[in-house]
Amino acid sequence: MGALSFLANPHYAEQLNSTQASAVIIHPDRLNQCKTAALLSMDPYATYAEASRLFDNRPTGSLGVHATAVLADDVRLGVDVRIGPHVVIEAGTVLGDRVEIGPGSVIGAGCKIDDDSRLAANVTLYHDVKMGKRCLIHSSTVLGSDGFGFAPHKGSWKKIFQLGGVILGDDVEIGASTTIDRGAIEDTRIGHGVIIDNQVHIAHNVEIGDFTAIAGCCGISGSTRIGRHCIIAGAVVFAGHIEICDNVYISGHSTVTNSIREPGSYSSGTALTTATEWRKNVARFRQLDKLARRLIAVEKQLKS
Amino acid sequence: MGALSFLANPHYAEQLNSTQASAVIIHPDRLNQCKTAALLSMDPYATYAEASRLFDNRPTGSLGVHATAVLADDVRLGVDVRIGPHVVIEAGTVLGDRVEIGPGSVIGAGCKIDDDSRLAANVTLYHDVKMGKRCLIHSSTVLGSDGFGFAPHKGSWKKIFQLGGVILGDDVEIGASTTIDRGAIEDTRIGHGVIIDNQVHIAHNVEIGDFTAIAGCCGISGSTRIGRHCIIAGAVVFAGHIEICDNVYISGHSTVTNSIREPGSYSSGTALTTATEWRKNVARFRQLDKLARRLIAVEKQLKS
Amino acid sequence: MGALSFLANPHYAEQLNSTQASAVIIHPDRLNQCKTAALLSMDPYATYAEASRLFDNRPTGSLGVHATAVLADDVRLGVDVRIGPHVVIEAGTVLGDRVEIGPGSVIGAGCKIDDDSRLAANVTLYHDVKMGKRCLIHSSTVLGSDGFGFAPHKGSWKKIFQLGGVILGDDVEIGASTTIDRGAIEDTRIGHGVIIDNQVHIAHNVEIGDFTAIAGCCGISGSTRIGRHCIIAGAVVFAGHIEICDNVYISGHSTVTNSIREPGSYSSGTALTTATEWRKNVARFRQLDKLARRLIAVEKQLKS
Repeated sequence: MGALSFLANPHYAEQLNSTQASAVIIHPDRLNQCKTAALLSMDPYATYAEASRLFDNRPTGSLGVHATAVLADDVRLGVDVRIGPHVVIEAGTVLGDRVEIGPGSVIGAGCKIDDDSRLAANVTLYHDVKMGKRCLIHSSTVLGSDGFGFAPHKGSWKKIFQLGGVILGDDVEIGASTTIDRGAIEDTRIGHGVIIDNQVHIAHNVEIGDFTAIAGCCGISGSTRIGRHCIIAGAVVFAGHIEICDNVYISGHSTVTNSIREPGSYSSGTALTTATEWRKNVARFRQLDKLARRLIAVEKQLKS
Repeated sequence: MGALSFLANPHYAEQLNSTQASAVIIHPDRLNQCKTAALLSMDPYATYAEASRLFDNRPTGSLGVHATAVLADDVRLGVDVRIGPHVVIEAGTVLGDRVEIGPGSVIGAGCKIDDDSRLAANVTLYHDVKMGKRCLIHSSTVLGSDGFGFAPHKGSWKKIFQLGGVILGDDVEIGASTTIDRGAIEDTRIGHGVIIDNQVHIAHNVEIGDFTAIAGCCGISGSTRIGRHCIIAGAVVFAGHIEICDNVYISGHSTVTNSIREPGSYSSGTALTTATEWRKNVARFRQLDKLARRLIAVEKQLKS
Repeated sequence: MGALSFLANPHYAEQLNSTQASAVIIHPDRLNQCKTAALLSMDPYATYAEASRLFDNRPTGSLGVHATAVLADDVRLGVDVRIGPHVVIEAGTVLGDRVEIGPGSVIGAGCKIDDDSRLAANVTLYHDVKMGKRCLIHSSTVLGSDGFGFAPHKGSWKKIFQLGGVILGDDVEIGASTTIDRGAIEDTRIGHGVIIDNQVHIAHNVEIGDFTAIAGCCGISGSTRIGRHCIIAGAVVFAGHIEICDNVYISGHSTVTNSIREPGSYSSGTALTTATEWRKNVARFRQLDKLARRLIAVEKQLKS
């Protein structure tokens, strides 16, 4: 009945004294502060991640194809697949070895899901979505819905048919209720090892570079390209047709309207105050350009 | 064919003169302004809510388990349950009396749904989600998906397996397309009487206190604790690992990056203007610190 | 194996020299710049939209009702409908001619879906949702979930039963994972030719005028009315009970808290900077009213 804990954040170092855990994953430098069994690691947080796998308690579906699943005749299945109840898989789709499809998921025609990938329950893939190995897609997520493409024409909107697909690399994890639209002509592309949280919207022809992390509620407009190894905090909104270089960090709830060409940390927005203070400051924000011009006038007057 | 109306907002008091309603729910103080039949209440809006129940027109599913539903052998069902077509319920799950599960919903292993709770169509519960009595969960909502937990390791991301669950109190209502992730080690917890709107994202290990209301499109990052009786307007974004005390009101589209320790109203953001004005003001915002320093210099010069 | 391209944005005019396309859709004015076959159009972007239809590669479901679909006895179907596997359609619902319902979609009681409309997989309609002709609704989208209506009562929330429905005009397209709540008493209404992107939340009793476009991740609070021919960029958040007139453009990630009575372009928010600059400016924003007052004091002193 022992517990395993870890110390990654120096902020919590004092808790080493009082922990009830049977063993703690720590950096060797902290060994003499530790009063319980220690598991030494140069990177305790990564070792904690590794150890968490040992406790993986997710149930897996039954081997084989459930009697209620509806598969087109020409669907090709690898070995040891697990296809849950009420799954639908349409014509020409290919599933690799050990792929698991959760109950109620629907996979359109011409998709490819490579070895060891897993769809949770009630996931939807439209046609022509390709996914690499070891991907994990959470519930209510939709891959391959039509991009939002319309041409204005005499006061109404003409649909631009979305002819591209969606391509995911290997080791991609996508959270729940996220949507990735198919491309207009070319494909929407998600690189290897990309991790995407819940409630994210990725528009048509976006490209996300390898190992980039995108937290919950972000919205990425069409044709925007985000580089490799970026970290996008929650609820960041990107304009379309811009480029973000590699190794960019963007803080939560920012708006990104222009390309970013230098690695580094970026932010926008204002900080929370009481509503009373906020009302005064926000009224001044509306006058900000005028206030700045008045300051310039004052400076001129003082000079002369 | 009569209609029942109510007057809660004094702003609409004049309409008492012209209403076509057969009866109006009003505060006794307004009785002599009322020209139609009056239903007196000290709290007309709450009485309107009470009265709306009389008109409840939602169809209910058929009693029993639909022939197309797929239930594991050891699922335990209370009396008078209603399990719709194409529902899937996995091993060890327990449903209380009069529970209703809408068509296409999937309930993972080891869940518990207490008496009189109701899932609409196409809801997904992962394993180990516990829900109190009289809860209502709307369509496309996902409870118990993996928290967004990854450790950076040599340029890639190592998954931290999410071993906790999700616990909802009694009388919780959750809107459509909302997601609540399971905890990393401990559970994600939603208190009694909490109401949550559509498109909300609640990350792993968040705790929401009793009777708090969260409007649409909010995003709450991991391990944040929100107190009791808070009102969070739409599209508010919370950083992780912060604490919001009881009785806090946060206005729409705010960003909350720090803990709040005093009850009251809070806001952030800027107000809408014409795009032309906005462009000028936003350019000045980028110079704001420099402008402030120039003002200080001017003040100094004037003093000397 | 030829390709068809188009030139709508003058920004890309130089590419006419190097294009590999077999033919290009261009404005007649550019004919002498064009070295390949030209398809002349006064509106090349709209002609591209028209041409894209020729390449439409979306698979369609099989004619008829799939054996696994569950339809109430009194459901009425037009000619040439396509009802996919595991679809559920409840009592009293009426489908027009050539309607297609994707796998796993659930349609509540008393709905009406008019000719040539199409639901993708895993769409959910609650009861009493009416939809015009030629609509397209993408996956995980929910129409008719309960509006977020609760009356505060002695520290808890009393549900206000949502008795209205949802009405969509003709030629409406709605993206994936979008939610439109049913009205409290009257209906929520979406006009003809409205296009709505993914992850949008539309609350109860909202009205959207004909031919308005709403990009991804917007949130529109209850009873707000948006006019005709508006363009709402991504992630715009609207307060409730306000009115936006026709022909308004709102830029991405803005907050709209008041009614807009003049056509034109509107914005709010601040622009992205490096996090270092942002921290300084945002601190000054908190002092903005005080800084403005100090500027006024300086001006007075200079005058005297």
